[in-house]
Amino acid sequence: MPKLTNDTLIRALLRQPTPYTPIWLMRQAGRYLPEYNQTRARAGSFLELCKNPDLATEVTLQPLARFALDAAIVFSDILTIPDAMGLGLSFAEGEGPRLERPLREEREIRSLAAPDPDRHLRYVLDTVRQVRRALDNEVPLIGFSGSPFTLACYMVEGGASSEFRTVKTLLYDRPDLLHHILEVNGRAVTAYLNAQIESGAQAVMIFDTWGGTLGTSEYGEFSLAYMQRVLEGLKREHHGERIPSILFTKGGGGWLEAIAASGCDAVGIDWTVDIRAARARVGKGVALQGNLDPAALLAGPQAIRSRAAAVLAAFGHGAGHVFNLGHGLSQFTPPEHVAVLVDAVHELSRAHH
Amino acid sequence: MPKLTNDTLIRALLRQPTPYTPIWLMRQAGRYLPEYNQTRARAGSFLELCKNPDLATEVTLQPLARFALDAAIVFSDILTIPDAMGLGLSFAEGEGPRLERPLREEREIRSLAAPDPDRHLRYVLDTVRQVRRALDNEVPLIGFSGSPFTLACYMVEGGASSEFRTVKTLLYDRPDLLHHILEVNGRAVTAYLNAQIESGAQAVMIFDTWGGTLGTSEYGEFSLAYMQRVLEGLKREHHGERIPSILFTKGGGGWLEAIAASGCDAVGIDWTVDIRAARARVGKGVALQGNLDPAALLAGPQAIRSRAAAVLAAFGHGAGHVFNLGHGLSQFTPPEHVAVLVDAVHELSRAHH
Repeated sequence: MPKLTNDTLIRALLRQPTPYTPIWLMRQAGRYLPEYNQTRARAGSFLELCKNPDLATEVTLQPLARFALDAAIVFSDILTIPDAMGLGLSFAEGEGPRLERPLREEREIRSLAAPDPDRHLRYVLDTVRQVRRALDNEVPLIGFSGSPFTLACYMVEGGASSEFRTVKTLLYDRPDLLHHILEVNGRAVTAYLNAQIESGAQAVMIFDTWGGTLGTSEYGEFSLAYMQRVLEGLKREHHGERIPSILFTKGGGGWLEAIAASGCDAVGIDWTVDIRAARARVGKGVALQGNLDPAALLAGPQAIRSRAAAVLAAFGHGAGHVFNLGHGLSQFTPPEHVAVLVDAVHELSRAHH
Repeated sequence: MPKLTNDTLIRALLRQPTPYTPIWLMRQAGRYLPEYNQTRARAGSFLELCKNPDLATEVTLQPLARFALDAAIVFSDILTIPDAMGLGLSFAEGEGPRLERPLREEREIRSLAAPDPDRHLRYVLDTVRQVRRALDNEVPLIGFSGSPFTLACYMVEGGASSEFRTVKTLLYDRPDLLHHILEVNGRAVTAYLNAQIESGAQAVMIFDTWGGTLGTSEYGEFSLAYMQRVLEGLKREHHGERIPSILFTKGGGGWLEAIAASGCDAVGIDWTVDIRAARARVGKGVALQGNLDPAALLAGPQAIRSRAAAVLAAFGHGAGHVFNLGHGLSQFTPPEHVAVLVDAVHELSRAHH
């Protein structure tokens, strides 16, 4: 295996020394980039873009052509698994995802099956392979999946939700049925991430977008427990290289100790958490990824530099920090502001290493 | 002054012994009640309902006629202050609040003035007086206001928001202007709550709905600091009776120690926080209010009872707990489920006192 030219992300995730703090950004390929919107228009729709490996590869690489990012993340959506399960995914313009056949009946829930990634999610694996070839070992490629609970939210609600009424009613009234969905999702996510690793993903991330809407004990029982199972089933090495894992629960700041003990290599944190306190709480077992407020990128260059400096200073000296936002990049971010941030992190972080 | 027949809420907020745990529910008067929808239809619109003391009194009392609640809360909206400032409040059906003239220009911000409650918010004070008369000292009446920061979010964004782009850009780029708005809002909230106290409110609550969208240091600087100023300016007694104050930051679970040190009598907590851990963290200086997931009320009676029991058991033995939801009641809540909850809390909590 040829070595990575820039392995700072992998090293930081494994808490090994790096000359500076590596940075990548959640949703770094997206609507804030004019070239992304052009490719998406060519694809026809967001979903067709996800399902076309040539075009998905193109948009995966777009932010790396502009900015000195330390990693690529495969362009895809967290709902590819429910789609592969046959729930019928679509995206209405400006309205977010819709699943045509949400899980409501016990019969439907009992007949749910984990999809075979090689058959039903081949387009993602093809994209991973194509991106790896195109990257030519310059920077690592991150694969990802939604968490079992976050997938279940969409699968039961049928789309985005503010109150999560349906899935929570299921949780409180029929926890056995929700556990069944989560068990299937857990197997599906494990197989999906392992297939991405076998196709070339060099790190993997689990996005638990909605775990933070749960109470503490429900989070442990219905979200964290299933991510832990996924982590237990993941290939930790591929072709002799360690494949680090990142677990990110948005709104999970109250549970960092438990998340850090889940078996992941790194914990993603949102911007509501102070990264200095987070580092003290998780201890030396895991790296941290985060945690600038994405809204800070809407401010001017001076504010961006000073906020980046504040996050770096709060993490402090030494290994184990991957700079990122605390949530996905806003579509309203001026691309030149991203350049300011990436350069600021690279420049200012050297003093901390 | 005649004494309250049921003073359990006031006593619990002041951490004095009570025979059971008192309960009231955020948004206890609202769309889940058919009689509320009837009164609202008679009023014409939500805003006309708020501004009509007769009808606002009627809906304030509706949940108390149905359920053995231990407090009333004046029916109003947190945006009455921006409306009184002349920003032009309206509610589009199903779309949430709109302010016609959001604060965007420095000139507009610099000319902002705190409204005189006796002149511009008289309808709220009239409602407070009418409700007090109607309650006849049966249970206490809670007055409330939005927090200075939460009001600023609406005043700058012009409505509800998911990303808070405008107010956060102001925060990062022009903190001086946001501080100016917050300073005016702080004075406005103080005067407004004091006017409610003078009109008969027996406890007051500050709703910091959006403080939880900030980072830790920004929360301290832009939200908590101004709530603290409000608390410092509040009348702590009226006609010889202590007026307890409750501070509730949704999503503020990471900052409970700081909130508890703000000078409030009680801290509201949302359902993502474990109330046992919260009690240990805030210590003996404040009471706690919360924290059942409002979605639990969508489940069946058995689940509601068991979840209520879990919250009561987690708080544990002794004084200083006001049972509530962790956020407002959902409009989809079956009213009979609220009855189950209120009865369960009254019955099951006796063992903890």
